[in-house]
Amino acid sequence: MNYKMVLSMIGNILLIEAALMIPALMMALIYQESCSGALGLSLLLTGAVGLLLKTARPQQRWYGSQEGMMITGFSWILLSAFGALPFFLSGQIPSYIDAFFETVSGFTTTGSTILRDVEALDHGLLFWRSFTHWIGGMGILVFLLAILPQNNAHSLHLMRAESPGPEVSKFVPKIRDSAKILYQIYLLLTVIMIVCLLIAGMPLFDALCTAFGTAGTGGFEIWNNSIAHYDNVLIEQIMAVFMVLFGINFSLYFLVLHGKLKEALKSEELHWFLGVVLVSILLIAINITPMFGSFLTGWRHSSFAVTSIISTSGFATVDFNLWPSFSRMILCLLMIIGSCAGSTGGGLKIIRLGILAKSIGCDMKKVINPRVVRRVHFNGVSVSDAIVSGIKSYFVIYTFILLTAIVLISLDGFDLVTTVTSVLTTFNNVGPGLAEVGPAGNFAAFSPFSKLVFSAAMLLGRLEIYPMIFCFAGLRRKSAKSSVSVRISN
Amino acid sequence: MNYKMVLSMIGNILLIEAALMIPALMMALIYQESCSGALGLSLLLTGAVGLLLKTARPQQRWYGSQEGMMITGFSWILLSAFGALPFFLSGQIPSYIDAFFETVSGFTTTGSTILRDVEALDHGLLFWRSFTHWIGGMGILVFLLAILPQNNAHSLHLMRAESPGPEVSKFVPKIRDSAKILYQIYLLLTVIMIVCLLIAGMPLFDALCTAFGTAGTGGFEIWNNSIAHYDNVLIEQIMAVFMVLFGINFSLYFLVLHGKLKEALKSEELHWFLGVVLVSILLIAINITPMFGSFLTGWRHSSFAVTSIISTSGFATVDFNLWPSFSRMILCLLMIIGSCAGSTGGGLKIIRLGILAKSIGCDMKKVINPRVVRRVHFNGVSVSDAIVSGIKSYFVIYTFILLTAIVLISLDGFDLVTTVTSVLTTFNNVGPGLAEVGPAGNFAAFSPFSKLVFSAAMLLGRLEIYPMIFCFAGLRRKSAKSSVSVRISN
Repeated sequence: MNYKMVLSMIGNILLIEAALMIPALMMALIYQESCSGALGLSLLLTGAVGLLLKTARPQQRWYGSQEGMMITGFSWILLSAFGALPFFLSGQIPSYIDAFFETVSGFTTTGSTILRDVEALDHGLLFWRSFTHWIGGMGILVFLLAILPQNNAHSLHLMRAESPGPEVSKFVPKIRDSAKILYQIYLLLTVIMIVCLLIAGMPLFDALCTAFGTAGTGGFEIWNNSIAHYDNVLIEQIMAVFMVLFGINFSLYFLVLHGKLKEALKSEELHWFLGVVLVSILLIAINITPMFGSFLTGWRHSSFAVTSIISTSGFATVDFNLWPSFSRMILCLLMIIGSCAGSTGGGLKIIRLGILAKSIGCDMKKVINPRVVRRVHFNGVSVSDAIVSGIKSYFVIYTFILLTAIVLISLDGFDLVTTVTSVLTTFNNVGPGLAEVGPAGNFAAFSPFSKLVFSAAMLLGRLEIYPMIFCFAGLRRKSAKSSVSVRISN
Repeated sequence: MNYKMVLSMIGNILLIEAALMIPALMMALIYQESCSGALGLSLLLTGAVGLLLKTARPQQRWYGSQEGMMITGFSWILLSAFGALPFFLSGQIPSYIDAFFETVSGFTTTGSTILRDVEALDHGLLFWRSFTHWIGGMGILVFLLAILPQNNAHSLHLMRAESPGPEVSKFVPKIRDSAKILYQIYLLLTVIMIVCLLIAGMPLFDALCTAFGTAGTGGFEIWNNSIAHYDNVLIEQIMAVFMVLFGINFSLYFLVLHGKLKEALKSEELHWFLGVVLVSILLIAINITPMFGSFLTGWRHSSFAVTSIISTSGFATVDFNLWPSFSRMILCLLMIIGSCAGSTGGGLKIIRLGILAKSIGCDMKKVINPRVVRRVHFNGVSVSDAIVSGIKSYFVIYTFILLTAIVLISLDGFDLVTTVTSVLTTFNNVGPGLAEVGPAGNFAAFSPFSKLVFSAAMLLGRLEIYPMIFCFAGLRRKSAKSSVSVRISN
């Protein structure tokens, strides 16, 4: 294990985080808010620790998959630990654990909040809070890869550890170029969305924060009643469209940008995703029509809720906690399903569930006839047994962690719906759950222990489990005797 | 597909069912109850249809795994369809769907009931109801194999389709002898339990019904407040011990009977099972001590509830629906975990979860180092990749069916805890759930559609999914071109 390299890389990440605090600081200065001091101090502290870690000059600049996991896991924990400082130092979130929860929720693009009154927060802090969504959405290590010159063989380990989904979107041979392309698409879509929101009549500050939250599929809002504040169908529909767009695999946009629209539209993952979205909207719209009097109003609320939940954004226009059991159950399922791999969304990911569903069919045939070999096909290509097996393992680990977290949270004694959905929504990086943690509720009432469990669940969910586990498992390992890293000194 | 053989075998099963109705009929005659007519008529009808099906004389007496699945699936459906007749014809359960639900719940050893007032039932029907638990516990096809001369190669397909767990308990080379041994152990344990209950002061009729329900890990009781009716610590502790005993793999008793106690005690599955039982009892006892004033009373209720739920019996002494969230959540987990393979209990089975947990460890190591091959060991032997992969597939299918059933049941509009736990408890063949279907509740208020969904869930759970799916999938198959059955005409 090349610990010095790990430290040095984490140092880079903290330096970037310090730099990323500058826009929020400027916002605080523009609004002449008291939080500017806290933001400035946080910036200095984060930068100083970053520089300190950089002094651990690694003699060899290699890292393998273990180091990649460790860098990713610890980066995200420290990112949140330092990102929480502005909230804590300004005194606007007096408990550090609360501030940490809020920041983890931001970076992991969950959007669950411990704030009972979000409107009481300074603009600078609101901006930082929403900006963490944008940073976390595409990933800070991907950002690092885009700006730093890196060895390709190493970079893949980082990219793999941070990117959602069973496989890495590698558009071009060079990881650095892939990372750049990802961020360019991300930035472009965000800017288009900001313009759309401005045209729809949203103020600039709101448009920036909302776009950050949508692009990262986070869901933090700057008003206590979230998007219901605007009561504007156009804004809702713009958001619904962009929530779907940010839930789609970014590699498809790369194809579109290269004139391969037809090929992009052939994506099986896209078909499943849009299929699930449309069927869910329709089912829920029918189910809630009696509540809202007309099918159209039902469709309006259903389409917003479904796109918000399946993209794992978590914005709210109405309190879907009051909807019938069937609709709420569908929404719970959508939390688990999540969006496409290679998007900014969370959940299990459509591609995993698609491959799982197909492999079940093959397995059933195998039960009857063990001699016949049948392969799973997805997106037009044969999926290797290793990937299918890996996805099944992921599903098992995912379920085990989910159940463990639910048991731990149940110690707080909340009703079972709150207990279960609070874990579902944090682990899948959605935002709101049902009952006490529904769209009208928040996570303030949980114990500090539960808030730490939630924070762990959010990080496990965002990084898809392995990096978080290995960043601790790696510490326990004696020497690097079974390391298979590529040793190239450059 | 050898349909004639399938029909002929199902005919055998119905003839056996008709014969098994005789004890209940005698009970009705002893108590001079009006239901004796309904029982007699049901016996004649079942026997007549059985004889009718037997007229389909198969020219070839072979069957393969497909036929085995089909025989098992349809046998269980028809068993329930005809077993429901006494309740329906006597008019004591006026709706046939209700009667079908109740009988499926009996044969699958679930123990969920649609009866609001079980005490209103005649003794003859109460006896039949509890007796279905005993028949379903060890399996009626296993019974058939024990009494009919069969070809060994074929019998294994039936044994495999009906026995719970990833592998068949085959003690001796001949399936017929294995089946006989299983039923001998089953009968012996049941008789010992009846004697114990009589000594503890339970009336004979009660002792018979309770022992049938415990042996099959079913949970039907003959009093509205279940075991709380007796308010007898000794009876509770006898039941707790026997619920654990019937949740243990019967192959261990075979070892004990052959003087290999030491070997039996080495079973890893047994260690996991007893470990989960003890830890759960302790955790819940601590959690509910404040409710009951003393740790001892807490332990008394906790030990009964835990053994009742993990063995998937479902008897109740207190309303655990009123317990704290943590205790209820543990009980929900125990429903999923279930008992040992090769026992009469349901759930996912300890051995599957043990192997899954160990394989997760191996998978994690593989993530870091794909070149190292690590094997899962369980019960002291290496588990083949095919079995590990099969268990993972089972886990995925299990979860998919569970979620589908929950969505279907949510259409009834019950609260989410009722919706989710009603499916958990039926699919895992436990009995009571939480909220409306808690120990003090019942399944009467669900729609006929939901009752059919529950019935399907109970059958899927008892037969471990595949036979139920294939008994319908088999009908759709054109010809037997891919059949791999062993063709031996005897």
